[in-house]
Amino acid sequence: MAVTLAELARRFQGRVQGNPDLVIKRAASLDSAGPDDIAFLGDRKYIAKLATTAAGAVILAEAEVAHRAGPALIVENPHLCFARVAQLLHPSPAFKPGAHASAVISPSAHVAASAWVGPHSVVEAGAEIMDDVYIGPGCLVGSGASIGARSRLVGHVVIGDRCVVGEDCLFHPGAIIGSDGFGFVRDRERWQKVPQLGCVIVGNDVEVGANTTIDRGALDDTVIGNGVKLDNLIQIAHNVRIGDNTAIAAFVGIAGSARVGQRCTLGGQVGINGHVEIADDVHVTAQSLVTGSIRQAGVYSSSVKAEPADKWRRNAARLRHLDEMARRLARLEEKLQQHSEESEN
Amino acid sequence: MAVTLAELARRFQGRVQGNPDLVIKRAASLDSAGPDDIAFLGDRKYIAKLATTAAGAVILAEAEVAHRAGPALIVENPHLCFARVAQLLHPSPAFKPGAHASAVISPSAHVAASAWVGPHSVVEAGAEIMDDVYIGPGCLVGSGASIGARSRLVGHVVIGDRCVVGEDCLFHPGAIIGSDGFGFVRDRERWQKVPQLGCVIVGNDVEVGANTTIDRGALDDTVIGNGVKLDNLIQIAHNVRIGDNTAIAAFVGIAGSARVGQRCTLGGQVGINGHVEIADDVHVTAQSLVTGSIRQAGVYSSSVKAEPADKWRRNAARLRHLDEMARRLARLEEKLQQHSEESEN
Amino acid sequence: MAVTLAELARRFQGRVQGNPDLVIKRAASLDSAGPDDIAFLGDRKYIAKLATTAAGAVILAEAEVAHRAGPALIVENPHLCFARVAQLLHPSPAFKPGAHASAVISPSAHVAASAWVGPHSVVEAGAEIMDDVYIGPGCLVGSGASIGARSRLVGHVVIGDRCVVGEDCLFHPGAIIGSDGFGFVRDRERWQKVPQLGCVIVGNDVEVGANTTIDRGALDDTVIGNGVKLDNLIQIAHNVRIGDNTAIAAFVGIAGSARVGQRCTLGGQVGINGHVEIADDVHVTAQSLVTGSIRQAGVYSSSVKAEPADKWRRNAARLRHLDEMARRLARLEEKLQQHSEESEN
Repeated sequence: MAVTLAELARRFQGRVQGNPDLVIKRAASLDSAGPDDIAFLGDRKYIAKLATTAAGAVILAEAEVAHRAGPALIVENPHLCFARVAQLLHPSPAFKPGAHASAVISPSAHVAASAWVGPHSVVEAGAEIMDDVYIGPGCLVGSGASIGARSRLVGHVVIGDRCVVGEDCLFHPGAIIGSDGFGFVRDRERWQKVPQLGCVIVGNDVEVGANTTIDRGALDDTVIGNGVKLDNLIQIAHNVRIGDNTAIAAFVGIAGSARVGQRCTLGGQVGINGHVEIADDVHVTAQSLVTGSIRQAGVYSSSVKAEPADKWRRNAARLRHLDEMARRLARLEEKLQQHSEESEN
Repeated sequence: MAVTLAELARRFQGRVQGNPDLVIKRAASLDSAGPDDIAFLGDRKYIAKLATTAAGAVILAEAEVAHRAGPALIVENPHLCFARVAQLLHPSPAFKPGAHASAVISPSAHVAASAWVGPHSVVEAGAEIMDDVYIGPGCLVGSGASIGARSRLVGHVVIGDRCVVGEDCLFHPGAIIGSDGFGFVRDRERWQKVPQLGCVIVGNDVEVGANTTIDRGALDDTVIGNGVKLDNLIQIAHNVRIGDNTAIAAFVGIAGSARVGQRCTLGGQVGINGHVEIADDVHVTAQSLVTGSIRQAGVYSSSVKAEPADKWRRNAARLRHLDEMARRLARLEEKLQQHSEESEN
Repeated sequence: MAVTLAELARRFQGRVQGNPDLVIKRAASLDSAGPDDIAFLGDRKYIAKLATTAAGAVILAEAEVAHRAGPALIVENPHLCFARVAQLLHPSPAFKPGAHASAVISPSAHVAASAWVGPHSVVEAGAEIMDDVYIGPGCLVGSGASIGARSRLVGHVVIGDRCVVGEDCLFHPGAIIGSDGFGFVRDRERWQKVPQLGCVIVGNDVEVGANTTIDRGALDDTVIGNGVKLDNLIQIAHNVRIGDNTAIAAFVGIAGSARVGQRCTLGGQVGINGHVEIADDVHVTAQSLVTGSIRQAGVYSSSVKAEPADKWRRNAARLRHLDEMARRLARLEEKLQQHSEESEN
């Protein structure tokens, strides 16, 4: 794909500095860009690179324009503009509709004429593959599952029986949608399995990272809202509900029946206990543990930063006696109070 | 499947309230159940739903029976009874024995006549697939591996060379059994690999969640006891031994040669250090780290709950000076003791 | 494979005790070894086993030789020697070159005549598979990707488009190289995807564990150095750079653009924040969180050890008031100082 700087300015409400007919072919970083490429200045600390970059053009904000002599696209939000320019210049690879000869598609499945089913993929009975869906190599779409228009399974993706995926979704390899929830009841020494009868409902414009797992609901469904972005290696348990446009980083575990609001962000390795409810616009920092409901928007944390181990070990050892320390402190306060009273008398 | 309420009462030692000939077809939640469905009351806080549910029948305990006018199955443990009723009403899908035309089965493998090998699955040389085993699409059973009767590989499961799986097991997609343990020895700057020569022995009635990994032993074997339940995205390292009926939540990492007892539960994101031994009936709360052996049954924890980040940051900053605080506290105690002694003199 | 003790001594600079013509066929543990096997003493606490082991020979250090009556190989570093002996005795399984009939190989891909492509594997357009590469069942090598000589994909491995893998690498099942980085920009309520245009460059002699994910760079590349060892279930985000011979345990998450030095070790469940730089020879203990750059070699930690939950809960409750405790302590110190001054006056 190739567009002129003027065309980019028109599409993304920017102002051109320099030659408007400059042809741009690729998005790149300030460091690696060449004369056919467009880069962007995302952080003022890299401002010196504006003078040295070989980029054909740079996307930047009005405030930085003085630092750029060559061609530029001046916009309100350079990072956002760059994302949209890069989407335009680097669309998802096109594909021919149809199915690879090695794909195994049930006669009772419906595959849209404009969709593609890749080599060694399996589409089971009653599944529905909508228009322009791309199913890469080695995927499994279970019986009765449904994949909405323009969604893309990169390859090695599993969508379990009866799960419903919306439109414009993107699934990376190893993503597993609709595995059984972890539901067991104690029966003396043993565990009895509670059959997991619900499914997973994924909204539109959802991205699911590599090796992320989303369990089917126990009786009702697990629900992922529109515009949700999930990083790699996330676990979402049965009956969880994630609100629209929430973004979740790697290794986050959300236990059964928890509810996460809209526009939340959960940092890497965060844990959310079962049945907890989290309000809209809540942000949790990496490695924190949410054990109770959060009703107020805001930032929450229980992260502890690493320090040199010998120093940390001494602090951690004291932590194991903190309750005792608190009692000693209270006793001291009391004693000193007595002293003061005595010396006043 | 459809059974009468009377038949359920007979099978699961319950008492019927209302029409014993009521036909039940599905298990469902109090919220979503219809007239052909049976639900259960698992928690007294939902007791008001007994009056509003459209469920044909409800499983509940004697103590709650006054709150239910309609048909009911009265039992000692409603949740356990519901699990078993749901198992009866919703058995694993039946399958025809045989193998899909696209399955690749070594001539030296043994596949029972009653087993199924799904599309694009591979069964390597010398592997043994016992009676009524179901191997879904895209699985790999390595050379010399063995899968016990009635076990089920949902799809996209890997059972490595020479690994042994017991009877009645269930493996979810992306489960990897028998990857190499993480064994290396420093050789000046570099690492030398220690070949991982053991295998994984999985007991009977074990469930393994999606994308969970169990490494083969270095020299001897990694052993998973009977009735063990593993959630998604768990890592079990080489030579670990897990006792019978232990249940482990997502993101738990158990390092090499650790031993976990019987009937333990490990919460999500728990870490267990290598070579640690954990007694029977130990429960560890989410995100805790077990660095030494635990010899006594009980509950263990190092979980820290998230709080508003500005408040937490102040506390965490103090934590980095806790050892100094403890010394200052001790000095104060000493000083005050001196004062007291001086004023007494 | 079978070698004499004398041959082992010659290859690995050891000294033989006992019959130099003893034939060794396998490596094994002191507990399980038989007369054809060689074991090693890795830890003095197992020294009593030297008298009871049925091993044909034992690898040990000069200092322990008095405890071993039978055949032995005496070397400087028994564990390292054992690793190399085991590599010799148990090489990776040999394979016939070629491709399974079910493999799907693009006509524009280059597969070396000495390489193997297993059943149900896919090699896309323009990919390059070098000499003696083994690609097991169910792998996907994306378009334009390249796999260096002698590297081994055990099975169910994904190497994404344009990613470059060095020589002598080993990938375990479920490893995903080149999934999209987690890059989005806020656009009012929604997220706009930043197309991930870089790739992953993996050095030589790298091992990647089961279900580990390495994201492609956003604009430039993600780079894994030579000799890096990655355990199972690790997440390496876009544009991360890992230095040579660094070893990383399970569940470590390294966020975008972080740099980790050479010869580092990261314990299980460690989190590394984005853009952080970690020097060479840094070791981070399990479950610690690195939020800022570490410029000095050494050991770093924020690990908190589990203790009995009732005791821990009291300490953790105090932790939530630690800032207040610190202020109270400071006030006490001040008061006592005043008292001292007053009583001196």
